[in-house]
Parts: sequence; structure tokens; C-alpha cells
Amino acid sequence: VRAAVLLVGDELLGGVISDRNAAEVARALGPRGGGVTRIETVGDEAGAIADALRRLAADQDLVVVCGGLGPTEDDLTRDGVARALGVPLREDDALRRELTARLAGRGPGAEAAAARQSAFPEGTMPVANAVGSAPGFQGRWKDCAVWVVPGVPAEAREMVRALAARLPAPPGDHEWERLVATAGVGETRVAGRLEAAGFHAPEGVRLAYLPSPGGVRLRLFAPEGAPRASFDAAEARLRALLGADALPERSLAESLVAAARAAGSTLATAESCTGGLVGARITDVPGASSVYLGGIVTYADHVKTERLGVPADVIRRHGAVSEPVCAAMADGVRRALGVGLAVSVTGIAGPSGGTADKPVGTVWIGVADGGGTEARRFRFPGPRDMVRERSVNKALEMAYRRLVGAPG
Amino acid sequence: VRAAVLLVGDELLGGVISDRNAAEVARALGPRGGGVTRIETVGDEAGAIADALRRLAADQDLVVVCGGLGPTEDDLTRDGVARALGVPLREDDALRRELTARLAGRGPGAEAAAARQSAFPEGTMPVANAVGSAPGFQGRWKDCAVWVVPGVPAEAREMVRALAARLPAPPGDHEWERLVATAGVGETRVAGRLEAAGFHAPEGVRLAYLPSPGGVRLRLFAPEGAPRASFDAAEARLRALLGADALPERSLAESLVAAARAAGSTLATAESCTGGLVGARITDVPGASSVYLGGIVTYADHVKTERLGVPADVIRRHGAVSEPVCAAMADGVRRALGVGLAVSVTGIAGPSGGTADKPVGTVWIGVADGGGTEARRFRFPGPRDMVRERSVNKALEMAYRRLVGAPG
Repeated sequence: VRAAVLLVGDELLGGVISDRNAAEVARALGPRGGGVTRIETVGDEAGAIADALRRLAADQDLVVVCGGLGPTEDDLTRDGVARALGVPLREDDALRRELTARLAGRGPGAEAAAARQSAFPEGTMPVANAVGSAPGFQGRWKDCAVWVVPGVPAEAREMVRALAARLPAPPGDHEWERLVATAGVGETRVAGRLEAAGFHAPEGVRLAYLPSPGGVRLRLFAPEGAPRASFDAAEARLRALLGADALPERSLAESLVAAARAAGSTLATAESCTGGLVGARITDVPGASSVYLGGIVTYADHVKTERLGVPADVIRRHGAVSEPVCAAMADGVRRALGVGLAVSVTGIAGPSGGTADKPVGTVWIGVADGGGTEARRFRFPGPRDMVRERSVNKALEMAYRRLVGAPG
Repeated sequence: VRAAVLLVGDELLGGVISDRNAAEVARALGPRGGGVTRIETVGDEAGAIADALRRLAADQDLVVVCGGLGPTEDDLTRDGVARALGVPLREDDALRRELTARLAGRGPGAEAAAARQSAFPEGTMPVANAVGSAPGFQGRWKDCAVWVVPGVPAEAREMVRALAARLPAPPGDHEWERLVATAGVGETRVAGRLEAAGFHAPEGVRLAYLPSPGGVRLRLFAPEGAPRASFDAAEARLRALLGADALPERSLAESLVAAARAAGSTLATAESCTGGLVGARITDVPGASSVYLGGIVTYADHVKTERLGVPADVIRRHGAVSEPVCAAMADGVRRALGVGLAVSVTGIAGPSGGTADKPVGTVWIGVADGGGTEARRFRFPGPRDMVRERSVNKALEMAYRRLVGAPG
């Protein structure tokens, strides 16, 4: 199945929001989608939607259209798809009654909203929405299937998953993709090591380097599918070449949680400039509660003293962004929560607060466990969001490496 | 300037990552870009890149190409653009020396990486990267300007901003966009209210509803620009119709920080299932340190007792996800950090942990200030990430409404 995704929304073109649906759709299709080959974005105009849909449908087996199914006048995907298919919109009476009941009590617009959201292009079939209120629908244009799903990512994902389950399953001994994540090593270094060792991807499989602020992920990808055994062999070879720099799980946070579990250790966090992001990333992993006990966010200096026992005179003498404060934060939260391993972050994320000695981007990260406490200084480039993101990744990495006994 | 964005990367088609560059580029272009009209995504293939670039350039004034400028063999944007322009790649000697120095010490691949990253299509000009190492470049194809920038969002943003500053500035008394954010009210309700009141956008301006898990944002958008005075009048009318449901700032977190500052209050958070996300969202706002003192993440029950003073027998009798525990968490963190207003979250984000009484998605959110403590129960639909996101939004909203004296 060759698939394309058509995203609808002025807000995407205007940079008001970033799309998350294309990735949700690609993952929900999985190997059944055989790889999405194109993604296009158009604004909220029926003509633009119709043109793009026809153009994509002409050389695809499936087009998934996302967004523009809401109850307001700027939701024009139903109209655009009807125009592409050359049919009128027709109200689905049963669905209209259901939606009217569901929207009852939402004020004067509820009737009109229910009417709009239950009108579909003639000949298409409504698709239930397990998460939100906007129904989707499916139809065909010539040889191409057309699935139309809402623009809320979780709603799009669940609907595409349900529809994809009905596509023919791929051969069981073939795979399309394998990811090997690394932490704390850059693209240049990893590529150099693989080239020096003469690594080659198996036949029909491509190797791609996906850089991210925390490291690089290696992606083995077979557009036509390849035997599971070749993927196994290639992954084993990559892991042998990368050693401790290769992570056991798909992400740093998952690897940290798994490592803590394997070591029988528990985790806590003490955060200043990241404001809770390290804890948030750890608890993004389902089941993190088996190892992560909690954290203390100490944005104000006196909270560092009162909640983590960082001596006030140490803060006065060295500043809140300093080695002794960072180390005392890790020690303090480890003691306060009684965990095996604690990680701490204190830094200057910007845009203001920098000095000549400690410019914006200066971040100390600490790790404390039964073997001792260590704090390291970093200077992360870029704006506030990037400094925070890099700080989180480095904190997770230092905690992970301490647990598995592989210092960076 | 009619602009399009061409995103390059197998990882985007494969759903490994979501694009954030299209929005960065659109915002960095700002009114100078006159609105991005198309966004397309292709894989890491020189032929596909060249075809898409030529097609887009044929009816645009500017195409911004993002991604594929890294140092590895799968970074083919330079080759694709050269093919589109019909010119060979040529190494920039000065840049090569600079990159070689910069990458020194990164192992055996550094030489080859520097060579790859300093080769540009003949006739194009390199563009400096203020944040990372990959340089960009700019050129022309017929009447269309072509800017090629890296795929790391902060790098793309800074580079496009620098290039856009040289474009002619739009007339000073015109605007293109105005956003009015709301909290806690859905699209259907807002649209109903505006329709009932006979609201119409001014001439040349479109009104769009941008739903999000926390509410709906209203976007006034003039593709050709419109006088600032019409935007002012339309915004004033929207705010009058929406009353306290309209937020003063662009986001809930910014509005909360501004409201706390205006009230002379300070803030703290006590989080369980959100694991630090509420604190992270608040501290995402530059300058949040003037009101946010910190928070306590109590993922484990005994941490709720030890750090927040939630009585162990209350947890035993009512469970950790309950009204008395939620209220005690808010009271506890308010006392512990000595703040004016505290917010607490405790819930079951899933996928496991649900029961018949308290299914996955059950979340209690509490607010405590000098006027008393309140906890409310919610049942959020959807998977773990969505439950967490909705919890964060509702927590921020409840805190904001308490501060401005407008209960939901």
C-alpha cells in the first residue's frame, strides 16, 4: 500500500501549531502502510483540499486526510473531499441525532454543529471516533482509498489504527524498520566509527542517521520489507560497534527506567532551570512508577535551602548555578526521598540571567548514588527551549550511564 | 512574498519524528513571508528533492528547504538542490578549513564530514549557523529564491530569521495575524456564542477556530494584510463577547504567570501523574522565576506523606487519586514553599492502574490559596499522553481562574 498524508489547516501554514498527525498516521499504518511516500499541507479552502486530494490520489493506494472536521465554518474538509469525489454532501440522520444528544448543553451553536459534523460526501461511510466527538469517514476515488480523520493527534491515531487493522497483514518474517538509539555521541563520531569498521546495511535496507539534541538514532529501513534475520544481524553488529553508547530501549527515558529496574534502584530528581521537565520525561514512560519516586523543583534559591538542604552560604558564595550547589541538590533530593540514585539540574536557560562568567546556556548537572556525587558543567547553545531540552537529555544520560557503569 | 517550505527526511515520512520546522520557518518569516502557502515533505533522495523543489519554485517567490544538511551519506539535500539548479557541487575551501577545525577530535569521520558539509551547489552562497555546526546556503532558481537550512528547529529558526530580516518590511500600519486564546471552553460553545452575537470578521480578515486540549484559540488572519485598526476593533469585540474566557496572553501558562505577577502572588505545584509537566509548562515562560518558586513531584505515596504532609491513613482510606489527597497535596505544597497559590494534580494516566471506580483518565486537580482549597474530579479520554496534557491544561486553567476571580 503506497500511502500519502494530506494535512489541512491554515494554522499549520501560519506556523501557529506544528503538525503531529503525519507521524501518528505513519506509525498507526505501520508496515501495512509500506511507508508513507508524501506528506502535503494545504489551508482551509475547499478548492485547495480538492486539488491536492486528487493529485495525491492519482498515484497512491491510500490518502489519509487529517483535520478540518470540526463544527465551525472554517472546517471545510468535508466540502473539499466531496468536491474531489464529485458528489454532494448528505446528512447522516442517525449520526446527527447522536451528535445533537452529545453536544446538548453546549449552548446555541450545538444544533448547527451537529448538522455540520454529520454531513458526509455521498457514498462515503462514517468512521467512529473513540476519543473525541468529530466522526471521520472513508471513501474511494478511482483506485485510491481515502480516509478522512480529525486533526487532534490522539483521535487521528486511534481512527487510523482501527482502519489499518483491516488491511492485509505483511508477511510475518519480514520487517520494515529497526531503530538503535544512542546517547551523548554525535552524528559525525558515530558515522566515522561505522565507516572505519566497514559497516554496511543488509541488502534492501537503508541506514539513516537521525540526529537529535540527545544523540543520534540509527534507523535501518527497508522500503520493500526485508527478512527479520537480516535486521537482527545488522542490529547486533551495530550494537557491537557502538558498545555502551547504544541504548537498550527506543529512548533515553525508557532506557533509564529499564536500567533502574534491572539494578533494583530507585530514582529522584532535583530541578531548577528545567522546572520539572526531567521528571516529566521519566514519567512519560508507562510503568515509571516502579522506580521513580518523585522530585523537587527548586526554582527559587530559598527553596533549594529549605527543601534540599543546600546551605544558604554556599549559594551566596558560589551562586545557584555552580558545582557545589548542583552536587548539594542531588545529595539533598537523594536523602529527602530516600532513593538509590538522584539527578540534579541548575542552569541559566535564558533569555536573561546570563553574566560574563556564566553566560546563558551554562548548566550544571549532577548525579548522586551510593558510589558518590558528581557534577559536570555544560554550555548549551541556542535559545531557552533548546537549552532546556539539551539539559534534560544530558541529565537522563548521566543518570543512565551511572546506573550501567559506563561513564561518558 | 509567496513562500513554500520543503521538508526533507525519511524519518518524517516514517513517523519517527514530527516536523517542527515548518512552523518555525513560518513564524521566522513572519509578515515578510506573507503566509506560507504550501508545505511538502519528501524522503532522503536527491531525485525526489530536486523534483519537489522545481515544482514548488515554479509558482513561489521563495522556497525554504529544511533538513538533510548533516555530515553523513544519507544527507542528500545539497545534491538534490544542485540537481534542481542544474549545477555541480563545489567545495568552499575556507569553510572546509573552519569545519575541519571545529570537528577535530570527533574521530575518524571528521575529515569526510567537513568535506561533505562544505560542498555547495555552484553559484549559491553559504549562510552561517549561529546555533549548530551545519552551514546553510542560499541561491535562486529562475525567479524564485531558495534558502536551504538545517533540520534542527532552533538552527532553522535562527537562520531564517537572519535571512528574513533582509526582505522588505511590510507597511507599518498593517497586520497579518492576531490570536485570542481561551481556556476551558470548547469550539462548539465559542462558535455558538459568536454566531448568536452576530460576530463577523472585518473585511479581508478570516476567523479560524484552532481547537486544542486546553480550549480553543481564535485566529484572525488577513492573507493580504489589513489595517491594524480593524484588528484592534475585532479583537476588542471578541474579548467583550468572551469575557473571562478570553485569556490576556497567547497561552495559558503566560496568562497564569502574568496574573500571578499582577496579583502580587507566588506559585507552587504538587504533581503526581503529570510528573513535573505543570512546573515545566510554567517555567517555559521566560521570567516565570518572578512568581514560580518551585514544586514537589510525589509519584510514590510515601513521598506524598513525607514531603507534603498528606496523612498516610487518608491515602489508605481514600486512595491516592481522591479528593482529600488532592486537597492535602495543594495545601501541603503551599505551606512547604510558602506561596500564595498552589495547584495539585493526582490521577491515573494509564495505560494500567485503572479500576471500575477509578478508570484510566480519572484525575483530581486542586487549587489552594488564602481563600480556601478546592479539588475537582475530571475524567479525561484518550491515551496516556493525552490524559497528561489535558491534566496540565486544566491545572493551569484552575490556577489562572482562581487568581483572576473567575471560576469556570
